[in-house]
Amino acid sequence: MTSKSTAKKTTKRKAVKKGSSKATKYVYLFGKKTDGNAKMRNLLGGKGANLAEMTRIGLPVPPGFTITTEVCTYFYDHKRTYPTVLQSQMEAGIRAMEKETGRKFGDLKKPLLVAVRSGARDSMPGMMDTILNLGLNDDTVLALAKQSNNERFAWDCYRRFIQMYGDVVLGVQTLPGEDHEPFETVIEELKKDLYPKNPHIEDSKIDADGLKELVARFKNLVKKRTGKDFPVSPWDQLHGAVGAVFGSWMNDRAIVYRQKYGIPSEWGTAVNVQAMVFGNTGTNSSSGVAFTRDPATGEKVFYGEFLINAQGEDVVAGVRTPDPVAKLKKIMPKAYAELEKVRRTLEKHFKDMQDFEFTIEDGKLYMLQTRNGKRTGMAAIRIAVEMVKERLISSATAVQRVPADQLDQVLAPIFDRAALKNTAVIAKGLPAGPGAATGRICLNADRATEIAAKGERVLLVRIETSPEDLRGMIAAEGILTARGGVSSHAALVARQMGKVCVCGASEIQIDYNKKSLYVDGKTFREGDFLSIDGTSGLVYAGEVKTAASEIIQVLIEKSLTPAKSPSYQNFAKLMNWCDKASKLQVRTNADSPDQVGNAVAFGASGIGLCRTEHMFFEGDRIDAMREMILADSTEARKAALKKLLPYQRKDFVGIFKELKGLPATIRLLDPPLHEFLPHEGSMIRELAEKIGVKPETISHRVTELHEFNPMLGHRGCRLSIIYPEIAEMQIRAIFEAAVLVQKKKIKVNPEIMIPLVGFPKELQIQVDIVHRVAAEVSKEKKTKIKYLVGTMIEVPRATVVADEIAEIAEFFSFGTNDLTQTTLGMSRDDSGSFLPQYKELEIVKDNPFASIDETGVGRLMETAVKLGRSSRSDIKLGICGEHGGDPSSVAFCHKLGLSYVSCSPFRVPVARLAAAQAALS
Amino acid sequence: MTSKSTAKKTTKRKAVKKGSSKATKYVYLFGKKTDGNAKMRNLLGGKGANLAEMTRIGLPVPPGFTITTEVCTYFYDHKRTYPTVLQSQMEAGIRAMEKETGRKFGDLKKPLLVAVRSGARDSMPGMMDTILNLGLNDDTVLALAKQSNNERFAWDCYRRFIQMYGDVVLGVQTLPGEDHEPFETVIEELKKDLYPKNPHIEDSKIDADGLKELVARFKNLVKKRTGKDFPVSPWDQLHGAVGAVFGSWMNDRAIVYRQKYGIPSEWGTAVNVQAMVFGNTGTNSSSGVAFTRDPATGEKVFYGEFLINAQGEDVVAGVRTPDPVAKLKKIMPKAYAELEKVRRTLEKHFKDMQDFEFTIEDGKLYMLQTRNGKRTGMAAIRIAVEMVKERLISSATAVQRVPADQLDQVLAPIFDRAALKNTAVIAKGLPAGPGAATGRICLNADRATEIAAKGERVLLVRIETSPEDLRGMIAAEGILTARGGVSSHAALVARQMGKVCVCGASEIQIDYNKKSLYVDGKTFREGDFLSIDGTSGLVYAGEVKTAASEIIQVLIEKSLTPAKSPSYQNFAKLMNWCDKASKLQVRTNADSPDQVGNAVAFGASGIGLCRTEHMFFEGDRIDAMREMILADSTEARKAALKKLLPYQRKDFVGIFKELKGLPATIRLLDPPLHEFLPHEGSMIRELAEKIGVKPETISHRVTELHEFNPMLGHRGCRLSIIYPEIAEMQIRAIFEAAVLVQKKKIKVNPEIMIPLVGFPKELQIQVDIVHRVAAEVSKEKKTKIKYLVGTMIEVPRATVVADEIAEIAEFFSFGTNDLTQTTLGMSRDDSGSFLPQYKELEIVKDNPFASIDETGVGRLMETAVKLGRSSRSDIKLGICGEHGGDPSSVAFCHKLGLSYVSCSPFRVPVARLAAAQAALS
Repeated sequence: MTSKSTAKKTTKRKAVKKGSSKATKYVYLFGKKTDGNAKMRNLLGGKGANLAEMTRIGLPVPPGFTITTEVCTYFYDHKRTYPTVLQSQMEAGIRAMEKETGRKFGDLKKPLLVAVRSGARDSMPGMMDTILNLGLNDDTVLALAKQSNNERFAWDCYRRFIQMYGDVVLGVQTLPGEDHEPFETVIEELKKDLYPKNPHIEDSKIDADGLKELVARFKNLVKKRTGKDFPVSPWDQLHGAVGAVFGSWMNDRAIVYRQKYGIPSEWGTAVNVQAMVFGNTGTNSSSGVAFTRDPATGEKVFYGEFLINAQGEDVVAGVRTPDPVAKLKKIMPKAYAELEKVRRTLEKHFKDMQDFEFTIEDGKLYMLQTRNGKRTGMAAIRIAVEMVKERLISSATAVQRVPADQLDQVLAPIFDRAALKNTAVIAKGLPAGPGAATGRICLNADRATEIAAKGERVLLVRIETSPEDLRGMIAAEGILTARGGVSSHAALVARQMGKVCVCGASEIQIDYNKKSLYVDGKTFREGDFLSIDGTSGLVYAGEVKTAASEIIQVLIEKSLTPAKSPSYQNFAKLMNWCDKASKLQVRTNADSPDQVGNAVAFGASGIGLCRTEHMFFEGDRIDAMREMILADSTEARKAALKKLLPYQRKDFVGIFKELKGLPATIRLLDPPLHEFLPHEGSMIRELAEKIGVKPETISHRVTELHEFNPMLGHRGCRLSIIYPEIAEMQIRAIFEAAVLVQKKKIKVNPEIMIPLVGFPKELQIQVDIVHRVAAEVSKEKKTKIKYLVGTMIEVPRATVVADEIAEIAEFFSFGTNDLTQTTLGMSRDDSGSFLPQYKELEIVKDNPFASIDETGVGRLMETAVKLGRSSRSDIKLGICGEHGGDPSSVAFCHKLGLSYVSCSPFRVPVARLAAAQAALS
Repeated sequence: MTSKSTAKKTTKRKAVKKGSSKATKYVYLFGKKTDGNAKMRNLLGGKGANLAEMTRIGLPVPPGFTITTEVCTYFYDHKRTYPTVLQSQMEAGIRAMEKETGRKFGDLKKPLLVAVRSGARDSMPGMMDTILNLGLNDDTVLALAKQSNNERFAWDCYRRFIQMYGDVVLGVQTLPGEDHEPFETVIEELKKDLYPKNPHIEDSKIDADGLKELVARFKNLVKKRTGKDFPVSPWDQLHGAVGAVFGSWMNDRAIVYRQKYGIPSEWGTAVNVQAMVFGNTGTNSSSGVAFTRDPATGEKVFYGEFLINAQGEDVVAGVRTPDPVAKLKKIMPKAYAELEKVRRTLEKHFKDMQDFEFTIEDGKLYMLQTRNGKRTGMAAIRIAVEMVKERLISSATAVQRVPADQLDQVLAPIFDRAALKNTAVIAKGLPAGPGAATGRICLNADRATEIAAKGERVLLVRIETSPEDLRGMIAAEGILTARGGVSSHAALVARQMGKVCVCGASEIQIDYNKKSLYVDGKTFREGDFLSIDGTSGLVYAGEVKTAASEIIQVLIEKSLTPAKSPSYQNFAKLMNWCDKASKLQVRTNADSPDQVGNAVAFGASGIGLCRTEHMFFEGDRIDAMREMILADSTEARKAALKKLLPYQRKDFVGIFKELKGLPATIRLLDPPLHEFLPHEGSMIRELAEKIGVKPETISHRVTELHEFNPMLGHRGCRLSIIYPEIAEMQIRAIFEAAVLVQKKKIKVNPEIMIPLVGFPKELQIQVDIVHRVAAEVSKEKKTKIKYLVGTMIEVPRATVVADEIAEIAEFFSFGTNDLTQTTLGMSRDDSGSFLPQYKELEIVKDNPFASIDETGVGRLMETAVKLGRSSRSDIKLGICGEHGGDPSSVAFCHKLGLSYVSCSPFRVPVARLAAAQAALS
């Protein structure tokens, strides 16, 4: 096996070799002569490649050149030095710019000024961004003043240049103990000196003489801090700026960013040197940023903003509030018309929504950058679908254009925007179930059920939740916990049920006894309103109005017809394309007819995991369940199980009806029995009275069933090895339900799944029971039933004996939740105390409970697939962990060649999209 | 990868195929023509193979034949039917016996009677053992009477036959509610009817007419219970007996026994059919059991016992207490001389101590069985060492002769001599299993199991034991019987299991109904304490203090010189041979200088696992530890750690001194922090006062640290990722101690081990700290320190990324405890509720926490070894789980090619022996 790091090393060596060759071209021009194009982003960076491309298609781009990413690699491989040929190539580049602009670098009449910008393959915040106005010094500033006939403009450019250059190239930055950025401090002092009556005057009101004085003071500051004079020679300035860009590739923020997004440091950055154009020469000039379509809604409108008489960084800085781009139409109709044309050209050429920067200098438009624009989920869908309609892209491309993770944004309930404005944020937790929820605070599940039964909206607020809270969670609009991460019980169940959830809002202190919670200096009592936004993690005081998403209104609530919802139509079209492209099927994890109905509406092709134990918590069933657990003989246990049988049968009837012949993988009882018993004194006494046993009997059984590590305890098939009568009841319920539904001419397709198998014989014993009970029911009811029997693969042992298991199992379903816990030796519920730090230190790339740990868990899955197929070539393979709704995990499952993934109903569309993308990529 | 079961199946299929082939030989003769030999035990069973072998070497064996184990396999693969050719082969076998004995099966003049005996590869209590006198019916009994001229003898044989056959073949056994065995009840009634004045007359005093009546009543009983007449035809009788032997292979007791000793059910048993010889024809006849050396002590003396005028089962049954074999010299000098000759021949030929059965019929000696004798650990060592001295075997064979598991018997405590002086001897029996045992009296096996499960020491006291008592015997500290000799069931099983045993203590009267025993004028009730010395046979009233074994006295206590202990000398010689043979080194798991000293005395070649956390529980340290855990800042934590540093350093100094340069693998802090905090109110308050914080602060931290699955929680290296200062302190303590010891000219060899690594980067971060601190200490103390850094492999993920881990780790140590828990998804502490059942159902072969699960955990270990070596060819590999002291796991580690195993100090000799055996096998 070759490790990844070895592979990386080889690439590095090759790059170095190239770097030392004399023939190498390190500088790529754009302008009248253009060397690069959009496909060269690895070499030229995203910005450089697109500047070249825009030049090629005739857009007005100020000329310049790009220093390649290979120079960056060379730089770090050679102790921060450059290839010797670089200087002459840069000189040629500057000469080309001089020729095209009619200006000269350092010239005292018509000086060429340049902008220096970094540009990696993907834009990367954290790196040095831009230095403008490079080439200015005490001499060239005079030429610029004279030539522009605008002294204030020239000196403003000069002081901006010194400030930017001083900061990012010369490192004149805030020192420990200082409150302000040093250049800003100098400005403040200058204002006090020059305008003692009005020391808070705006920068733009400082006159030319003031700016001259400011330049002098800035140069003093630089001298004082660096011990050197500010560089005068434009070439020195340029060398400094290029070195600073390459140097910033390895600064802390850039490293952190790359780690977060998995960008290899070997990629390196390019440097772009471009002739300056000025949006700040007067009222006929401006700078702006625009999108070819609305990135929030996807609407095909020209969307953006600009500032008159400003340089590019002013628009982004947020000091002045820019105007919407439509306003430009009135102010500069000619330039606007040109911009509109550019917008159309860009989309036609790049075939995606573009985010671009422009400058208008004295009425003339220049393009400074373009790239694919970031967008919301809603916008992504609309843009993709409409671009297909416009024949800009194919439906396959459209599918790949929508980030799968963003899809559930369009399904989540939303806060009424107007309502939010008047509401106080009182805490922030982890966004664990997207959407908006508002309701009365209930601090326990019973209370929540009770209040909700009265028709009140409820927010279940707990320190943390447990399976006992399930009913309350079902009843609540949303769930808020003070402890636990995005993979805590609360979050898991919330995602499963599509509930809004904010978890780990640690500022909130909960006192169950006083039925109160304290946060932000306020006290809230049970019954008070709170609102939570599961997309942002914000917690609001009071009630905030919400609405269901349109897609839910169409598919689930049916309160909206498809025809009335263009956003639903776009969604439906996209999903349709997905299914045509996918190799993987998408099933759902659902435990009740309702959930199954929803999942089928969302396009699920069956149930991948029906957790039968969830059915035991409802209504009176829990009493029979508890009676069964407390039984002191097999006979008593069987009697209690007999009471449960009709409930389970009824559930399965409902589920089979909703499925209309789609397959249903039904897992037999999995959790340890103590999860079904009450643990607190009062509840124990209540139960004792109800079922007529002594409280001590219950307490004793609770103690007896206590486990140190329940996750690794008496659960899964280990339960029915010891109590086969439990499995028998469940299997009988399944088959009796199947017979009932079949008699109504509805097909049924049950797949019975044995959990937690590690030893082939464990499975064999269970499979024997399934076949026996199936035969019994078949005989009793005189009806044949088709079914499969298979197993979860969720402990590492099962993966290494998968060949033996596959001799018995007709299907495998990877239980990646537990497989991750066991493979990593890491409890999902307890990992909150160290996992965040693990991500920060890059010990793990992603939360392994959110995305499959491909290197570890994934390899065991590969082994299981290989061995499983070796003894049963047509074995059905799926995955039913929470990972089934995670796009990168779906891609991994596609690569493994599984038949299906299964996820919670509300994640089904996400998984369908991810499956299609995996097939297309 | 081919799975074991596939392999098994293939074997099975082959057997079946063979079974259906006409050419297959299913019956092997012994006698004038002998088909088998000693090497054919897999096919003929141990008994059959050795009968053939004894015949071959000229010993007097009654003729017969063996039905092979393949027939048993066929029997279970074909719904309990036989290969068709079997009958004709059996007929040929009977014909050969008829020819040789001059008798005929079912003949009315000289009837051939046969014994039918089971015979698996290894002798297996629990299976049907023997049916004697088969071939008798109302006609042949007359012939036997006439021919032997002894009517009483003939009818006694007949009634015995009906009783044995009725019981084991026809299933006429004690029914629920009955107090006595039904045949015994019939005898009691007969005595009352025939001898109303003396109803307690001995069976041997019933005259021929009485026996005729008894036969009639027995036949009635059979008819009543089975609804059928007792079979008359000898062939029907023979078929029934053969079927019963094969059937008994799958009875409960046999299954339990196989589980305990890991015998696969596929092996099957053979059946031996042999011409009867009679030890009960009169006073010139006898039956006996003997050993070529003393199986309790190993002394080279003729050891055994016999009964005049008895059949073999009388000796074993314990109804009459037999005489020592030496007495035979006086009674039958000729037969005794022949026996002595046989004893020498057997040892010379089989080159091992033999346990054999003989019968003397009218002064003529017959051999009925020989096998390698079971022996105590003490005897095993002495016999092995002395046989080398006698040039019977090589030292390599000697090493293989001592079952590694029995070795710790010689390390087991013996009674304290001083304590014994003040304790009353209340009875004396036969010393049948050496050692000292003390415990509460339990008069039945179930009760013993129950009381032992509560953690009480138990002494199982029975009139005599039977295979049904097996589980109780396993649970008990020792076994005491009132009846039966050194070859009784109790003695046999005790020797096999290394249990302390005194048998045939005939002064003791046991009343099962009153749950009491009477001896020496005293009454003891169930639950009272008794003590037994299995080396002297003495029984003591009450609890008696124990003292260390001789070997411990020599090696650890040094209260005895080697010269004064021949048993130590034998032990030392054996260990010396072991070390010459071994490839694996044996290290120890030890956490204190004391333990290390002991382990080195036992021959440990270093520490394989020093659990540093154990050091934190002693004395004041726990307070500093708790202070550290409660610290609310890194500074406060460091301050508390500073207090711990001197303690840890001192411990390491002590350990390094004891090791004198042997390597010490030191594991950094592993358990979750909450293990160090008190959890109960009063203890929390006490601690709060002691360290001056609020009790709430402690309770809050306890709650905060609570984990659902601590085994998978915040522990191992995860602790020092979050709190690197803990690791720093520990590493500093190690290196500072190393420097101190080195300065005293004692070599040190620390190997620092990082626990619970799953991700390569986890390890890298820790290794960086080790190197940094090592450099710091080196610089401060101006001393160089040699050390290694490595990791535990204890989560499955580590095994699949072992190549990446080995790039960083200089050694791997398999933490097989945790690796088993995670691979199987099974908590050791919680598995008690299902694991016993798993063994019974043969889901697992052995307790995976006792013996490495080779198929599951073992495969992951193989992967780790392969990958680890692929990136570091000379990586040091060891194992430090509890499995390191388990012989079969040691053998597996040898096969994997590890460098060492590590186990608790007292298991070091066992592991050294197991390692040598693995290398030699």
